[in-house]
Amino acid sequence: MEISASSLIFLAGVVGIAWAYSQFRIIAKIPVESNSGNSESQPLTSSGNDAEKTARLQEIYQAIYEGAESFLRAEYIVCFWFISVFSIIVLVLVSWGTGWDAARGVFTALSFLLGAITSMGSGYLGMKVAVFSNVRTTVSAQKPGWTDCFNTAFRAGAVMGFALCALGLLMLYMTMLAFRVHYPEAKQWIYLTECITGYGLGGSVIAMFGRVGGGIYTKAADVGADLVGKVVHGIPEDDPRNPATIADNVGDNVGDVAGMGSDLFGSFAESTCAALVIGSSIGISGGWDAMVFPILVSSVGIFVCLICSFIATHIKTVKREADVEMALKVQLISTTIVMIPTVYYTAMSYLPAKFQLAKTVGTGSLDITPLDATYCVAMGVVGGLIIGLITEYYTSHSYQPVREVANSCKTGAATNMIYGIALGYKSAIIPVLVLALVIYTSFTICDMYGVALAAIGFLSNLATGLTIDVYGPVCDNAGGIAEMAELDPSVREKTDALDAAGNTTAAIGKGFAIGSAALVSLALFGAFVTRIRHASGDKVFADGVNMLEPVTFAFLIVGALNIVMKLQAVLALVFADTFFAVNAGKGLLKMG
Amino acid sequence: MEISASSLIFLAGVVGIAWAYSQFRIIAKIPVESNSGNSESQPLTSSGNDAEKTARLQEIYQAIYEGAESFLRAEYIVCFWFISVFSIIVLVLVSWGTGWDAARGVFTALSFLLGAITSMGSGYLGMKVAVFSNVRTTVSAQKPGWTDCFNTAFRAGAVMGFALCALGLLMLYMTMLAFRVHYPEAKQWIYLTECITGYGLGGSVIAMFGRVGGGIYTKAADVGADLVGKVVHGIPEDDPRNPATIADNVGDNVGDVAGMGSDLFGSFAESTCAALVIGSSIGISGGWDAMVFPILVSSVGIFVCLICSFIATHIKTVKREADVEMALKVQLISTTIVMIPTVYYTAMSYLPAKFQLAKTVGTGSLDITPLDATYCVAMGVVGGLIIGLITEYYTSHSYQPVREVANSCKTGAATNMIYGIALGYKSAIIPVLVLALVIYTSFTICDMYGVALAAIGFLSNLATGLTIDVYGPVCDNAGGIAEMAELDPSVREKTDALDAAGNTTAAIGKGFAIGSAALVSLALFGAFVTRIRHASGDKVFADGVNMLEPVTFAFLIVGALNIVMKLQAVLALVFADTFFAVNAGKGLLKMG
Repeated sequence: MEISASSLIFLAGVVGIAWAYSQFRIIAKIPVESNSGNSESQPLTSSGNDAEKTARLQEIYQAIYEGAESFLRAEYIVCFWFISVFSIIVLVLVSWGTGWDAARGVFTALSFLLGAITSMGSGYLGMKVAVFSNVRTTVSAQKPGWTDCFNTAFRAGAVMGFALCALGLLMLYMTMLAFRVHYPEAKQWIYLTECITGYGLGGSVIAMFGRVGGGIYTKAADVGADLVGKVVHGIPEDDPRNPATIADNVGDNVGDVAGMGSDLFGSFAESTCAALVIGSSIGISGGWDAMVFPILVSSVGIFVCLICSFIATHIKTVKREADVEMALKVQLISTTIVMIPTVYYTAMSYLPAKFQLAKTVGTGSLDITPLDATYCVAMGVVGGLIIGLITEYYTSHSYQPVREVANSCKTGAATNMIYGIALGYKSAIIPVLVLALVIYTSFTICDMYGVALAAIGFLSNLATGLTIDVYGPVCDNAGGIAEMAELDPSVREKTDALDAAGNTTAAIGKGFAIGSAALVSLALFGAFVTRIRHASGDKVFADGVNMLEPVTFAFLIVGALNIVMKLQAVLALVFADTFFAVNAGKGLLKMG
Repeated sequence: MEISASSLIFLAGVVGIAWAYSQFRIIAKIPVESNSGNSESQPLTSSGNDAEKTARLQEIYQAIYEGAESFLRAEYIVCFWFISVFSIIVLVLVSWGTGWDAARGVFTALSFLLGAITSMGSGYLGMKVAVFSNVRTTVSAQKPGWTDCFNTAFRAGAVMGFALCALGLLMLYMTMLAFRVHYPEAKQWIYLTECITGYGLGGSVIAMFGRVGGGIYTKAADVGADLVGKVVHGIPEDDPRNPATIADNVGDNVGDVAGMGSDLFGSFAESTCAALVIGSSIGISGGWDAMVFPILVSSVGIFVCLICSFIATHIKTVKREADVEMALKVQLISTTIVMIPTVYYTAMSYLPAKFQLAKTVGTGSLDITPLDATYCVAMGVVGGLIIGLITEYYTSHSYQPVREVANSCKTGAATNMIYGIALGYKSAIIPVLVLALVIYTSFTICDMYGVALAAIGFLSNLATGLTIDVYGPVCDNAGGIAEMAELDPSVREKTDALDAAGNTTAAIGKGFAIGSAALVSLALFGAFVTRIRHASGDKVFADGVNMLEPVTFAFLIVGALNIVMKLQAVLALVFADTFFAVNAGKGLLKMG
């Protein structure tokens, strides 16, 4: 039974949203009330009865919710103004660049707005779900056993993961279908795909705000809370006497959940757009279904992630502390394994047996088979898994590196820093080599289209990636809430164990975001070169991009500087915020 | 009166060496004996009489000397084996690559050996002079007034600076003259210049050992001494009870003097070789003197630096603490100002009124006038000055940045680190933009030859650059010796003031080394492309280097990784050494 590409994409979108909603319903059933059950046995360590604890839990939940809500409101007001002005710039520039073809200008600006709004919506939703689930994870941790609290945090991640992927997919595809009304013929699809790149740009613009704005806030709040609490006043982390701890918890939700969600959404949207632009000519020979193959890969990814999530929640449930890390790792590995044959089947079903694509550099074209396309996607999927596993190795307390860092503290902070930085550099070696290999292989097999497909493969199990990524800050917050609500220390111990794995998975999420960004940026560069060649009638970039041109080399250096400038700006802002937070914290604690 | 290029180069070499020797004689006149003169007036603060202090001074001098000597001996034994094996590899590979043209193989291996030996000799000499002068700077600081002690440290730098430049120049030029016996005709000079590139390689190989080996040793000793002393035992820096302080002082001499000297020698040799290879065809139309123009620039640089050094030692002598920084800054500025007209005069005298050079990319050639060449060298000289001044701004306690870092410590180590790193990134912005502009302009004016000339311009006042660079560790050590010999605290105060400026000048030296390395590497890349085009009969690189080739792009990433891997290795070694030093220091102090 063959179904059309459109049906498959819509099915994936609807199933993804339904699944996210079902997970949300399960979490919502947990009441926000303390039910320690063992308050008689340990009357000294826990202060107050369950009613008092419930009141504290609800108060803290409310405080974090209000903080996160007001932060995102402030952030999104800035975003709203920015995208309003920027969409007009896009509209004017694209119209001008296309010889005042207003349709292309309007369509590009429109897809830019839709991408930005989808990204904001996903971030906001993620924040809501995370805040909603944090306190419920704390409550679940009061119950005996590990299954309930792990599953609550895991499901919270799944709500964000599946909702974001499905929403992103549906919005993108519906926009494309709408544009197809104006561009019905296959030879016009080059303009259609060009207009749709606005969607990726919109997603990335919001990611920049979410990641940088949220990131600065969360790091400043984290460092500030730690400094005021541990260093200045000698009180433990997340102590209820420290007003900065609420800010720290808010930061996790807006930075690590909403910001990271927008970031990965941006990468997903951009890699899809890049693949569509580079492969737009496939539509002429292979038809619409073949051209939207990149979107089909993301669609089947949703099904694969959904099926594999049962392994964590039903098949091999978490029963002991030691199971947590393994359960999350199994998610990454299983989705990768299932993904490869699924992509092969999809490629065989929707791509023509052989199709041609013009080379990015020089003349002539390339013959591509469904198997070639599968190879490129598989390179990305496997590359993502390797980078994920390497990140886990370097950030999990189960392995040597983290233990060595702990050991290096014996001779003071200086040796700890030197060793930590050295280890950070070391951790980059294998991922970078993997990326170089993925780029080389996919580039050789399918030219720039292959790089774009590898980027899509990298992000094809994004729903799972986001699930385990969001799991981290949820557990972190759950621990903070347990401490602030002065619950039994055993609750904090349990959430701390969950959070230890969560820190690792948050690092894996960052690894995915950075690794995919490297592939996506190259794919976008390829899309740019492809389009400029086409638009200039093969005058520009026909021989590729020559590094030995004065302007190219000079801007290669300026481009590298760009990173340094951003790092500088971000660090300076973190410093300013922390400086302010610490001074404010000192004052508040003195008064209190 | 016109003199030949050879005469000018030999004159510069001989004058440079004679000048270095004269400076050495002046330092050598200072006896290593304490002569406090005010021991009656402050009997409580200084312990013991002058005879005891003299004994201590000589003991410490001996200890540092032995430490530095044995470190360099150990390092150079490794270097010796390495260059022995490597020169055979060079011999075989070059012979094989040139169709078993044994002469080219032998000549290249020979110039490689000469470059390496000159670099080792310069480093060793620099270390000797620095150790010799450290203690004499301490003794000079006992005398009233600032002129004597500043001049002693400054002259120590000058010995190293002028000796290294003159030796490097003479060895390189004599090797070229020797090779010319085998390649007498202008059209053979392409092979002559190719063989001479071994000289640059030899210099760089030793620089790698000196900079990395010496750098790891000095940093580990520095951090280890500080940790053991200040952190573990709460005793002041350079306290005589701390055995690691001698190691710290040794490290300054082998890392910051010998290592940095080899590093800058390597950059100087490589930029000259790159310019000679790219411009080898100038010999055919313009003759030998025109071809060796890059060496002439370095030669006149020695005269310029020599004349300007009188400003510091005789014209505007250092009379107060506030004069120190200005005196060093005036050196940088004055050499730059005098250099530009000197280069113009040299170019007009030795370059033909118009000469042609094949373009690196594509067909066709470029018309170059002496004025064009002057522009490119001037871009480098001025670029170097700007980078030097920016480095000074960011590292001197006279300006806002360092004061802000100090201020950031008020809220603890974390904010200090965040702000310090942010500032470090910020300090890179203008230098990188300057480099990009220098590359763009010189590349546009004279193609790759222009970039090589800019690199030579950057290093044309190397004698001054090295003088103020070596000045730093000498003052640092002088302070350490004063503390260890338990001299009057006023001596330490004076050396600390000298050292504060010295830290800044050491940073300027690093700025020069890194900035010139960026230009040199591009020039070397250009030389490589030029030669490969020639050797392959225009088959390879005729259209430049295309970034959109799978293998090029993949290795662009791997190349960036290379830096990360080296950073990791260096930091890991610093950690291991520090860890060992601290643990050893703990044990020794417990026993003592």
